[in-house]
Amino acid sequence: MQPGIPIQRNPALAGLACLRCGTAYGLDGPEPLTGCPRCRAEGYPASLVVRYDGGPWQPRPGARGMARYGERLPYLAYPSLGEGGTPLVDLPRLAAALGVARLWVKNEGQNPTGSHKDRLSPLVVARALELGYPAVIAASSGNQGVSLALYAAAAGLECEIATTPTMSASWRDALDQVGARVVTFTDPFDRWRYVARRVEEGACYPATNFIVPPVGSNPFGVDGYKTVAHEIVQATAGDEPPTVVVAPCSRGDLLWGLWRGFQEAREAGWLPELPRLVAAEPFPRLARVLAGADYRDHFPGRTRLISIGGSTVTYQAVRAVQDSRGRAVPVTEGEAAEARQQLARAGVYAECSSATVLAAALRLQDEGWLRAGDRVVLVVTSHGFKDGGEFVRSASR
Amino acid sequence: MQPGIPIQRNPALAGLACLRCGTAYGLDGPEPLTGCPRCRAEGYPASLVVRYDGGPWQPRPGARGMARYGERLPYLAYPSLGEGGTPLVDLPRLAAALGVARLWVKNEGQNPTGSHKDRLSPLVVARALELGYPAVIAASSGNQGVSLALYAAAAGLECEIATTPTMSASWRDALDQVGARVVTFTDPFDRWRYVARRVEEGACYPATNFIVPPVGSNPFGVDGYKTVAHEIVQATAGDEPPTVVVAPCSRGDLLWGLWRGFQEAREAGWLPELPRLVAAEPFPRLARVLAGADYRDHFPGRTRLISIGGSTVTYQAVRAVQDSRGRAVPVTEGEAAEARQQLARAGVYAECSSATVLAAALRLQDEGWLRAGDRVVLVVTSHGFKDGGEFVRSASR
Ligand SMILES: [Zn+2]
Ligand SMILES: [Zn+2]
Repeated sequence: MQPGIPIQRNPALAGLACLRCGTAYGLDGPEPLTGCPRCRAEGYPASLVVRYDGGPWQPRPGARGMARYGERLPYLAYPSLGEGGTPLVDLPRLAAALGVARLWVKNEGQNPTGSHKDRLSPLVVARALELGYPAVIAASSGNQGVSLALYAAAAGLECEIATTPTMSASWRDALDQVGARVVTFTDPFDRWRYVARRVEEGACYPATNFIVPPVGSNPFGVDGYKTVAHEIVQATAGDEPPTVVVAPCSRGDLLWGLWRGFQEAREAGWLPELPRLVAAEPFPRLARVLAGADYRDHFPGRTRLISIGGSTVTYQAVRAVQDSRGRAVPVTEGEAAEARQQLARAGVYAECSSATVLAAALRLQDEGWLRAGDRVVLVVTSHGFKDGGEFVRSASR
Repeated sequence: MQPGIPIQRNPALAGLACLRCGTAYGLDGPEPLTGCPRCRAEGYPASLVVRYDGGPWQPRPGARGMARYGERLPYLAYPSLGEGGTPLVDLPRLAAALGVARLWVKNEGQNPTGSHKDRLSPLVVARALELGYPAVIAASSGNQGVSLALYAAAAGLECEIATTPTMSASWRDALDQVGARVVTFTDPFDRWRYVARRVEEGACYPATNFIVPPVGSNPFGVDGYKTVAHEIVQATAGDEPPTVVVAPCSRGDLLWGLWRGFQEAREAGWLPELPRLVAAEPFPRLARVLAGADYRDHFPGRTRLISIGGSTVTYQAVRAVQDSRGRAVPVTEGEAAEARQQLARAGVYAECSSATVLAAALRLQDEGWLRAGDRVVLVVTSHGFKDGGEFVRSASR
């Protein structure tokens, strides 16, 4: 462990459990790194989730950002760069345009490295430090890689990023600056094979999935996404809470974390009713599973919305949307580009992949699924400086 | 005024005063827009500062970000996108490398549009709405333009940005998305002439300077920068406050705001001792004035650190550094590039122009001006996704 980087495990941390079959796993040794071994053996890969002991709890007064919800995070102290505590921005003019009662943007671009991934990375790095790994690793097309690399650097760990050639110049520069080891693969599945090998060698602790069919990302990290829900609940506490929350979706880490967080808030008595969760995706993937396809299938599709690309679905994504009576909404590149401009004209400069949340909301309004009384949160996961210029340039080619 | 965009003037707002001669100005009509008329007539342009009536005050409990310090801002309600409340990141390993007791980064890249300018823009927009202007205008090479355009859009105002050809693709895309009117000038002084004309026509309310020799930016906006100081004071309240604060400097808006904020905090009894303020600049400008040159002279120099470029100095910059017994430190592009990498390897991905703060601190350590007992805050004003890729590409040409 590095001097000056204190790690403190939450004494209420009880272990892990499978979100599909409920099997509990302890934390005496290293945890399973490929989701629930039992479900995987049955051919149904499923993520683990973090379990806590203990009764009533409160946000920690005086703590800033994500650490305010430390009582329900695996670590009370972890290498922090100031993650969380992002604003919930009230946009009444956009609410009027969408024909709903309220519209807020949860601007996750205001995290230290500019995306929601900053709620995952410090918890993964804390676990890697605790287990004594020299390095962390992620398969990432941008945001996750940059986030993990900067948190690893802050904690004195090495970092490897397995990526694709589509990564933009901004993200590449960040990884170069921090000195991460970047390995590029044309086939996304080769990335996962590389990560699997590095994990099997014991060289790296994984932040993201590396099996096929996939599970969600590292459960200690995904637990950090609960804090997005807690912050939304606290910010609307004197007000009326949202009825619908829309998030960009690739393999559903954020949606699952949101769902867990809203459930925790409801159990704590802070939230009268659970919102419906909407997954914005670049082509029908989760939408096909919700319509009856097997979640373990491949759903090939091409998109320049690289932060939410990929041809797979996870069990956690299905559960978050199904359990909340939500929807999965495919969004075209054109719709995303138009929504991005509409968001900017309301004051929020979003990453192209993040702007899909407004496009999805507009689609649901067209369909009559959104109602005039709805109070809607759009989770903008990353800011427009990441991929803005490149997206526009490649579109005009 | 737009529906849903409430503006509320602070009842403690008493008017403006010249920071050089002390002349007070009321707010019955529009304020002087070119600094103190009296000092300008004497040939010594100087900014105005906002005055407040009223005695003891406290941060507003429950308010988020900049609005916590509303009691000492011109507006209690203004068009907010979630500005301020940025983290003060403790970097013990970098402190050890620099040989000082403490080192923090105040990460202003975590503002809504990714820079400290988000503390200026909403207050300028609020004043423009109050005065009934249809549009706001700024001369900007990037950060200020994007910030003002997004806040104007959120409030339903038009926005014009007078810029130079050096603006990066990221910034340009943001301005395109938001639909700002962008006018490009090769000669930076032509930008100011254009802004002057639009202001004289009554078409636009100005966020930035437009006279030569220049004064600081709009005083209502610059007052927002005080909150950076207040947040630093509050974040170190249980700890020991900083002895040195380093900020990137072009015409000293941020340094002046910091200085006012620290003075306010000291008057309120929250800060035992005022820190020394250090200006990081791309070539000797303020450093030459502090060594005896006239602040109204031109100090030509070329730099790719465009966020802190320009050939002029302001009276406010001289006063902030002189009154605090601070320093102005010229930093080369090479030093900035190296410091940027060092910051990234500590976990902070900074804009090239912002990384000058670490380069300046390293220089002051070399000179023995920084001492082992010093507690240093580096204000990183903007994140690396703004100009990272382009800076590196242009350097390798
Ligand atoms: Zn299972
Ligand atoms: Zn004067």
